[in-house]
Amino acid sequence: MALVVQKYGGSSVSDADRIKRVAERIVTARKAGDDVVVVVSAMGDTTDELAELASQVSPVPPGRELDMLLTAGERISMALVAMAIHNLGYEARSYTGSQAGVITTAAHGRAKIIDVTPGRLRSALDEGAIAIVAGFQGVSQETKDITTLGRGGSDTTAVALAAALHADVCEIYTDVDGVFTADPRIVPDARAIAEITYEEMMELAASGAKILHLRSVEYARRAGIPIHVRSSYSHKAGTLVTGSMEDLTVEQALITGVAHDRGEAKITIVAVPDEPGAAAKIFDTVAAAEINIDMIVQNVSTEGTGHTDISFTLPISDGTLATAALTRIKDSVGFKEVLFDDHVGKVSLIGAGMRSHPGVAAKLFSAVAAAGVNIEMISTSEIRISVVCRDSDLDDAVRAVHEAFELGGAEDAVVYAGTGR
Amino acid sequence: MALVVQKYGGSSVSDADRIKRVAERIVTARKAGDDVVVVVSAMGDTTDELAELASQVSPVPPGRELDMLLTAGERISMALVAMAIHNLGYEARSYTGSQAGVITTAAHGRAKIIDVTPGRLRSALDEGAIAIVAGFQGVSQETKDITTLGRGGSDTTAVALAAALHADVCEIYTDVDGVFTADPRIVPDARAIAEITYEEMMELAASGAKILHLRSVEYARRAGIPIHVRSSYSHKAGTLVTGSMEDLTVEQALITGVAHDRGEAKITIVAVPDEPGAAAKIFDTVAAAEINIDMIVQNVSTEGTGHTDISFTLPISDGTLATAALTRIKDSVGFKEVLFDDHVGKVSLIGAGMRSHPGVAAKLFSAVAAAGVNIEMISTSEIRISVVCRDSDLDDAVRAVHEAFELGGAEDAVVYAGTGR
Repeated sequence: MALVVQKYGGSSVSDADRIKRVAERIVTARKAGDDVVVVVSAMGDTTDELAELASQVSPVPPGRELDMLLTAGERISMALVAMAIHNLGYEARSYTGSQAGVITTAAHGRAKIIDVTPGRLRSALDEGAIAIVAGFQGVSQETKDITTLGRGGSDTTAVALAAALHADVCEIYTDVDGVFTADPRIVPDARAIAEITYEEMMELAASGAKILHLRSVEYARRAGIPIHVRSSYSHKAGTLVTGSMEDLTVEQALITGVAHDRGEAKITIVAVPDEPGAAAKIFDTVAAAEINIDMIVQNVSTEGTGHTDISFTLPISDGTLATAALTRIKDSVGFKEVLFDDHVGKVSLIGAGMRSHPGVAAKLFSAVAAAGVNIEMISTSEIRISVVCRDSDLDDAVRAVHEAFELGGAEDAVVYAGTGR
Repeated sequence: MALVVQKYGGSSVSDADRIKRVAERIVTARKAGDDVVVVVSAMGDTTDELAELASQVSPVPPGRELDMLLTAGERISMALVAMAIHNLGYEARSYTGSQAGVITTAAHGRAKIIDVTPGRLRSALDEGAIAIVAGFQGVSQETKDITTLGRGGSDTTAVALAAALHADVCEIYTDVDGVFTADPRIVPDARAIAEITYEEMMELAASGAKILHLRSVEYARRAGIPIHVRSSYSHKAGTLVTGSMEDLTVEQALITGVAHDRGEAKITIVAVPDEPGAAAKIFDTVAAAEINIDMIVQNVSTEGTGHTDISFTLPISDGTLATAALTRIKDSVGFKEVLFDDHVGKVSLIGAGMRSHPGVAAKLFSAVAAAGVNIEMISTSEIRISVVCRDSDLDDAVRAVHEAFELGGAEDAVVYAGTGR
């Protein structure tokens, strides 16, 4: 008998009908003899609707109260899922994050899980019940206040519970059939990937693949919990995220997939004095504003001028904040101006196999060039190559790279409504 | 500096605008120097909407999960009220029933408060914050599950917190200007009652006045907490519920007010054998079905037949259950049939002063008769006289009684939308 943690996202529980279908799937797992813990997100757009209500009463609502408000969303969906399971003749009990023992930091809206004490879940399982848990939320160890985990929170809740309960697998149900070699809306012959290492999945997530949040994959890797990404609309095999790169054999496919990201912007700081400390001041300022930057490029100093340009990418939503912070240090650092460009796109090629194949980068650059796309920035890791181009060129670049590395399958991928989120 | 508990019902917090107005009223009390604890109900029809969602996934949802679901309603309203107060520059923190220390029995949907341990509220007040508490909900001492208190629950929460915190007053904000001598929709010159004893208020509540639930008044009386009923739409004086009948002077008004009830039905059991134990069997059966009966009338045995009719009143909603239970014992008791009549109405006259005035009943019967209304049943307590009539005659009976005892004021009462709830 296995212990399975299943997680269903907001679109899987968006109305009474879908909740009933999810209940059937949960009961099927229970019937097979497994112990089942289910993590749910809020129904459909509930979280957005609650946030909108908040903005109507207060332009800047306090984090503690916003978390109290938003956590009502999962409370509703989890109780309804438990009811639907009861109606199928199985015992189910719902638990808030706090009741499930999800202990977090006190950082409202972006709390980190410190500890999980799933005593009540364990008791429920021991009594033969299915435990339904609110994703995305926990309780602060310090203040005892209700917290939310921020983006990707429900996936992280599922993995954290799976780890604390020593589950055999954490199944993440979504609206696509698994992790694909590229977004099927851009690349029709993209294939579902049967198995992928944690490291590759982390690179995919960090490179714009929306299917799993980076944070939950990191957690799963640390805890050694396999993640099984599956569709809540089909019974296809999905994608298993498991195993380390160290275990890969030489037969391992060279390349796993192509990710893209339209959510980043590029900031260029023009004519920075080419002297020690200038770049440090700039990136200290950005870090102090709590902005995560991704790629950085510093041009070679233009001969004779003593100045250079520095470009970096960051989430589009942080653009205003970063530009304002940098403008404030313009005179003290002595650069000329700050340019903000939100018409960039990033395409990334990920594959554990590329470590031992130095030709991968050259092949990628050729493919992108052959598609007539100009590369503006490049960054690499051991198992990833990313390039930034114009956003209008992004789809062409993705298709060119996917084809050059022969990632496509024999048949076109089935695209469901909302695929790729 | 006083400690004030304020309670706002669902219509007072039905949208963002009303929540902002409620926040202003709360801040006014805080500005006056008082410590303020606020109990809120769910916004407008939220509770009904959540119950409807539940019925879509399960015809008979388990009580534990229904309570988990419904308590999301107050969670939303309390967080929004706290945000709105913040926006006015005052510190406010919201607390669920569980966080506020409302400890209850495990009876889902109709839990009773066992204890209140308001440590977190006390800390919040000590730090100068306004505490916002979810009404209607608590946590089971035995199972640690979330519970709801059932009808009138938010009023009871407010009174229980006021008692536990030794508050100076519990203010119940509603959509009418206070407790009236009769329903202003039926009697245009009904007056707001300035002050009323707990006992009279309990009789009014038990007789159909919807403004305060019986249970909360009982609690306030036991704890000695004054209840101040006020409108959240006006600044009128409202009604103070306080003091015992024992403290009343002889100058006390004879009569306090008239209540009416359309929510009851009459069951008549025809031709019950006039022998010891027959009535006991009937009322044992009704009690076993957990039905609260109100008035009972047993006719004098019709001479020579050895049979009598027994009638009693009960909530209309219990009619099907009671009729079914009684029909099952028809043969063993030996009565002829069970008649169900849901076209009755009840009018009650309440007044602590009537104890020492035996003529009150006669005057009431005359007034009702003069209005051409036939009396079907009568019951009395020390401070109340109730009569049952046809429901179509009820308004006439209320007006006749109100006028006979000269309860009217000089000017007509202002009737707001939704008055009388």
